[in-house]
Amino acid sequence: MSSRRHSIAVIAGDGIGQEVVPAALQTLRLVAERHDFALDEREYDWGSDHYRAHGRMMPVDGIEQLARHDAIFFGAVGAPDIPDVETLWGLLIPMRREFDQYINLRPVRTLPGIPARVVGGDDIDLVIVRENVEGEYSSVGGRLYPGTPYAAAVQEAFFSHRGVTRAAEYAATLAESRRRRVTSATKSNGIIHTMPFWDEVVAEVMQRHPDVTLEKVLIDALAAKLVLAPASFDVIVASNLFGDILSDLAGALAGSIGVAPSANLNPERRHPSMFEPVHGSAPDIAGQGLADPIGQLWAGAMMLEHLGEQAAADEVVAAFEGCLRDGIATPDIGGRPPRRSSRTRWRRGSGS
Amino acid sequence: MSSRRHSIAVIAGDGIGQEVVPAALQTLRLVAERHDFALDEREYDWGSDHYRAHGRMMPVDGIEQLARHDAIFFGAVGAPDIPDVETLWGLLIPMRREFDQYINLRPVRTLPGIPARVVGGDDIDLVIVRENVEGEYSSVGGRLYPGTPYAAAVQEAFFSHRGVTRAAEYAATLAESRRRRVTSATKSNGIIHTMPFWDEVVAEVMQRHPDVTLEKVLIDALAAKLVLAPASFDVIVASNLFGDILSDLAGALAGSIGVAPSANLNPERRHPSMFEPVHGSAPDIAGQGLADPIGQLWAGAMMLEHLGEQAAADEVVAAFEGCLRDGIATPDIGGRPPRRSSRTRWRRGSGS
Ligand SMILES: CC(C)[C@H](C(=O)O)[C@@H](O)C(=O)O
Ligand SMILES: CC(C)[C@H](C(=O)O)[C@@H](O)C(=O)O
Repeated sequence: MSSRRHSIAVIAGDGIGQEVVPAALQTLRLVAERHDFALDEREYDWGSDHYRAHGRMMPVDGIEQLARHDAIFFGAVGAPDIPDVETLWGLLIPMRREFDQYINLRPVRTLPGIPARVVGGDDIDLVIVRENVEGEYSSVGGRLYPGTPYAAAVQEAFFSHRGVTRAAEYAATLAESRRRRVTSATKSNGIIHTMPFWDEVVAEVMQRHPDVTLEKVLIDALAAKLVLAPASFDVIVASNLFGDILSDLAGALAGSIGVAPSANLNPERRHPSMFEPVHGSAPDIAGQGLADPIGQLWAGAMMLEHLGEQAAADEVVAAFEGCLRDGIATPDIGGRPPRRSSRTRWRRGSGS
Repeated sequence: MSSRRHSIAVIAGDGIGQEVVPAALQTLRLVAERHDFALDEREYDWGSDHYRAHGRMMPVDGIEQLARHDAIFFGAVGAPDIPDVETLWGLLIPMRREFDQYINLRPVRTLPGIPARVVGGDDIDLVIVRENVEGEYSSVGGRLYPGTPYAAAVQEAFFSHRGVTRAAEYAATLAESRRRRVTSATKSNGIIHTMPFWDEVVAEVMQRHPDVTLEKVLIDALAAKLVLAPASFDVIVASNLFGDILSDLAGALAGSIGVAPSANLNPERRHPSMFEPVHGSAPDIAGQGLADPIGQLWAGAMMLEHLGEQAAADEVVAAFEGCLRDGIATPDIGGRPPRRSSRTRWRRGSGS
């Protein structure tokens, strides 16, 4: 009998989510056994099929159902025949917001066997702390005079003192357990009104962390600096939109976004946190056994860490790093198509 | 006596603007002579010194003074002791807006002798068409409850049918003279209200250009794709903020942002257009003879092109490409410090 039990909601979702979630779960169950705890999994078949059948991505009481679990293990949503606004606002965004998952944590590291795409990229080891519930992704906005030559659309970005404070506080505390450097992504040269506010609040928070060095960099220069000095970053704190862009960018520089994980955290644990890969449902490669499971698996490791199972989490990371070192890899990171069936292991090089 | 005369307002501005503008003008004057036209230059000593003396970046009637010229040749503004909001809204942004320079054109190419920073980057040849007067850079925004725990800041992004139409139209027409591909930078997955509108207007415009292929890519995926397939892009059309980020990113991938030029165009020529490098005033290296003049010079070539002096423009580009091929380069692109004075030419390698 396992001594510790964790209740997990599993939502594989759409596209390659249906492939990488089961693959990742196999490994998670194995380490759970080895570390003497149990994952009480409950599967939810929500997503685009549910939408096609019921006109909703999840049941009306979906959020309440999820609220009972310790964590949510999520694949991806999105299908070519359904507008993104339905798939995302119907499932992904409500989880982030209703559960106040205000930190989106996105580590990016150069992994063994995955060549970096950029000069000097071999030692990338950074974490993006993305504010995850406000900023440029506010629900306020709409259209004027639609269908006329005077048509226009507006979007309100909203940054609160509380929202920026807690993101910066999380980043500073994280930096204290790492290389003690925080880079704040900004655009505060007087053009965008919210960004000088962002800077002030970040600076206020950093005063409480005198051991951490703060550097603020304009988002355009920061994108360039990630290319020119990718190994120089430790913790990057960024708004919702800037964090979104920087995490795909950093992932690509390190070699692949297929391996990048993402933890949507409610740090106070008042609500379940949610763990997903950075990649999406990738309908173009779905069903062909081509999807890279590492992003999902790494997200699983972050989930185990969040549940207090650090040793098991470390073992998961060591396992996929070992595979990569041994040349077991999907095509996105240089693996070759399998010889016989899609269940054959991917292997880099001659495959012999 | 020259047969053609062009009236140019010259604003070197701050920091390295004071170095690269005179350097670039030397070359422009030379080609003017060779191609039998004259540049009637008028220098304006506006910028941070003017601000320190008069509390303004330019005189009250500055815009009217500039309006009399055919084009504006601009260096950079920004000084450590003056808030960016003053330097930018006091000079750079009024030029863009008052002269309705709604297209910001930013070519990015791998240049001879400048190694790309990214795998596959040797054949980068793209142009970013950035919407330059609306979008995320609107003047609407501000703060609530400042100084309290309930403080917040808001910023309104505003996209008009006219604004998006003319940017997309410019991009499509440009693509017709190039490789006939337009990539539209978006974030239309239902999160940001303005972006589905952007998509619709872009699609509407592209219907009038059936020979041009349109691909829309979410900004996060686009940042990654620029890294993973940098040579696959032709024309990228982007909003004010996305274009800002993408141009620094693409410049860095191609090897340096020191060489990147930028044309702020009023295509109808109702008002003067303005030509500047993508880089800023770089106070950290100002006055040391380290600044790369190529960004400014290339901006000068774009100005000559805009003035109808295509042959002269081509010669300027051929000239700096020739220098680069010969190994004459500043430190940002691998050159070594000069031996004797900062007037010595930069040379890559042993310098012998
Ligand atoms: C799907 C989309 C709404 C989402 C985002 O922008 O947050 C995704 O890009 C991500 O990074 O998780
Ligand atoms: C200085 C700043 C306002 C400007 C911008 O963001 O437009 C600059 O980054 C640029 O790209 O020209």
